[in-house]
Amino acid sequence: MRVKTLTLAAVLSLPLPALAQIDPAALRDAALKDEIAWDITEGLTTEIGPRLAGTEAEARARAWSVKKLAALGFSNVRNEPFRMKTWIRGEETLEVLAPFPQPLRLTALGNSGATPATGLRGEIVYFKDIAALHAVPDGSLRGKIAFVSHDMTRTQDGSQYGAFGAVRRSGPAVAARKGAAAILIRSVGTDYHRNPHAGGTGFPEGVTPIPAAALSIPDAEQLQRILKRGQPVSVKLTLTPRQVGMTESGNIIAEVPGSDPAAGLVVVACHLDSWDLGTGAFDDGAGCGIVTAAAKRVMDAGEPRRTIRILWAGAEEVGVFGGKAYFEAHKGEKHALAAESDFGADRIWRVDFKLPESARAVGDRVAAVLSPLGISRGRDPASGGADVAALVASGVAGIDLQQDGSRYFDLHHTPDDTLDKIDPSQLRQNVAAWTAMLAVVANAPEEIGATQ
Amino acid sequence: MRVKTLTLAAVLSLPLPALAQIDPAALRDAALKDEIAWDITEGLTTEIGPRLAGTEAEARARAWSVKKLAALGFSNVRNEPFRMKTWIRGEETLEVLAPFPQPLRLTALGNSGATPATGLRGEIVYFKDIAALHAVPDGSLRGKIAFVSHDMTRTQDGSQYGAFGAVRRSGPAVAARKGAAAILIRSVGTDYHRNPHAGGTGFPEGVTPIPAAALSIPDAEQLQRILKRGQPVSVKLTLTPRQVGMTESGNIIAEVPGSDPAAGLVVVACHLDSWDLGTGAFDDGAGCGIVTAAAKRVMDAGEPRRTIRILWAGAEEVGVFGGKAYFEAHKGEKHALAAESDFGADRIWRVDFKLPESARAVGDRVAAVLSPLGISRGRDPASGGADVAALVASGVAGIDLQQDGSRYFDLHHTPDDTLDKIDPSQLRQNVAAWTAMLAVVANAPEEIGATQ
Repeated sequence: MRVKTLTLAAVLSLPLPALAQIDPAALRDAALKDEIAWDITEGLTTEIGPRLAGTEAEARARAWSVKKLAALGFSNVRNEPFRMKTWIRGEETLEVLAPFPQPLRLTALGNSGATPATGLRGEIVYFKDIAALHAVPDGSLRGKIAFVSHDMTRTQDGSQYGAFGAVRRSGPAVAARKGAAAILIRSVGTDYHRNPHAGGTGFPEGVTPIPAAALSIPDAEQLQRILKRGQPVSVKLTLTPRQVGMTESGNIIAEVPGSDPAAGLVVVACHLDSWDLGTGAFDDGAGCGIVTAAAKRVMDAGEPRRTIRILWAGAEEVGVFGGKAYFEAHKGEKHALAAESDFGADRIWRVDFKLPESARAVGDRVAAVLSPLGISRGRDPASGGADVAALVASGVAGIDLQQDGSRYFDLHHTPDDTLDKIDPSQLRQNVAAWTAMLAVVANAPEEIGATQ
Repeated sequence: MRVKTLTLAAVLSLPLPALAQIDPAALRDAALKDEIAWDITEGLTTEIGPRLAGTEAEARARAWSVKKLAALGFSNVRNEPFRMKTWIRGEETLEVLAPFPQPLRLTALGNSGATPATGLRGEIVYFKDIAALHAVPDGSLRGKIAFVSHDMTRTQDGSQYGAFGAVRRSGPAVAARKGAAAILIRSVGTDYHRNPHAGGTGFPEGVTPIPAAALSIPDAEQLQRILKRGQPVSVKLTLTPRQVGMTESGNIIAEVPGSDPAAGLVVVACHLDSWDLGTGAFDDGAGCGIVTAAAKRVMDAGEPRRTIRILWAGAEEVGVFGGKAYFEAHKGEKHALAAESDFGADRIWRVDFKLPESARAVGDRVAAVLSPLGISRGRDPASGGADVAALVASGVAGIDLQQDGSRYFDLHHTPDDTLDKIDPSQLRQNVAAWTAMLAVVANAPEEIGATQ
């Protein structure tokens, strides 16, 4: 802990030959020609495809990942298995029966209950948002199918997801308490394609799950137009998902061993699982590609001071089971810093920090080396992505490399989350930013310890 | 036929009080605030939705149309029924079995044969285009599933559809002759969404239909990536469409009676049927909205010289059965001119003519009144849309109001052809152009007769 008490000038005058060879700016610029992140993203999405948590597809993805990370030259590559409650999709259709018969497109939300195999018939009751649903008395929707809309809009920072995601996260439980036979929501998204947005929901203990599904946005607007014509609207909903009990998932871990175990681990994370409708390119194959390409580039530049640990978390989408398992298993180890890439593959535009006072200069150096990539320094405290949030919340330092989310919610959890959506040049800008950040952080002579 | 022998100056000096009141430029400008085209398009797509030819949905659309056109004040509103061979979609799934198991998205082509209900297993043989498929010997694909790609690109005038549509129109028959068990094609389209493009195909007498389907473009590229990895690719294809025999379709007709029956009819057309995956907004609800709004505006301005006949043709998508039925039933009547709107709802950018020498000045006046809308005069001979092509080919004059097709093949025959895709301001520009054209043509004192 001696370094902590030294000034930066004094630190830089210490004899540290290994550090002298690593120039984060040069690594950053070289990474603008990166092919590794694309190769990983393409491989995972092509050779595995959809990777729903807890399924055999996610297990195939783990086997693929171990092989890939070992081939890239990382150390201590391993699968850390855990058990989880697994839900799988079934049939999913919606037919308007009256007054204007026609099919509409939807997808079941994770943990949705099932209708009878022959479908559930009911009348639609419209709510313009979740507040309107909350406002009706418990039990008042007996036998009805609630339909909840919202007005999420496109933002660069994805900030609407917190508020408007509530319709998906808690809307089904609210509708169940009101007595509804089922709930339909407008997809939490910003596109106009007939590809509904999946995503998890939950029912508290004591609330029996009801069938819950998201209409694509064109279909949600179609249903609104049908309702607006003023006649009662009856539908037949068929959803046959099921809970399959406890199955295995796992976290994939790989490392770049550092020279100074006492300096703490730098964890760079992404998640390996995806929703089942797309191939999980934007969410989050690219994230795994980005953090891994960066770690590989820093590794190839010479042994870093700190061990870099790559975490490809399992089962993020369905409840951050992998992130929780990692925290439980590893919280006793010294972590210097944690960061995750899990917001697509478009360019990074801002960097936020949560660093201890001892590492203030580390933040300054990271901000300086990122600036030429068009990345500004933000003032929000970093919180980490979902899989490292527990670490960061527990006091580990964090850096958030914020991606442009303008089109993230066009693709998020939809069938359209496929490789073709990734812009290789923006992907490379991500790799350059992560490489530079990691080169600075992994080699920083300063103490980067607990922030609280 | 007296007018034919007079000069234009002489014609304009005749006492024609009804004509004097109609100012095409004023009608054009008023139409830029049109609500009728939107109202029709919204009504048809909302209250009926998908309208596959020969089905009960198309029959509901005909009943809706008769009611709507009568309510708008048109005369002689009627359904002219005809019989047609009808094909309907069934289940449609594709699973890659090896080497990288995953589902891919596709849709059956119209007139596709069926697989067994339990699916058809086979190995994929890749062809980069239809020429490559043509090049292999007859019988050489025994038991295989052909997969044919192509490189259609986006164009303003849609001119790539002619060449690249061949993979859909004739690819299945070619594959059948080569002995293939089934054929998959890359969707004939330009978007990157997981919504495959439907469309008709055909098998000549003596060629047994094979299962034939289009993969969405992201899925087609995924299959190419899988193939590129060099291992044999086996799949399970399930398609259960069926031919349901002869059913009823019909053409909906409505008229604005003119003062001079001898001057010939002006037919303005669109088609009422749609593919079943979308709601037929771009193709071709908007076309019906546009031509009908224009006819209504000309009607409301005062009795025209020529009768305007609105044709909402049935069963265009599956073989232009309505257009053929109209031609057979009405070819004996005197038609002055025919035109159709069937290329989406984006702005008109060019006008092409096929006019007899006697009507040269009519073309000049139409071009002049359209120019302020940003519409240039083209040099191609007008051919009419599909439903009036037989009329125009038989010698009736035609005018093509060419729409910007840049995004037409993003939506064409996909689930994404829904109301939200229509830009109201571009739709109004269409109505303005059609109104002005129709005001000139329906009231032109010149003879507009046969072009050959």
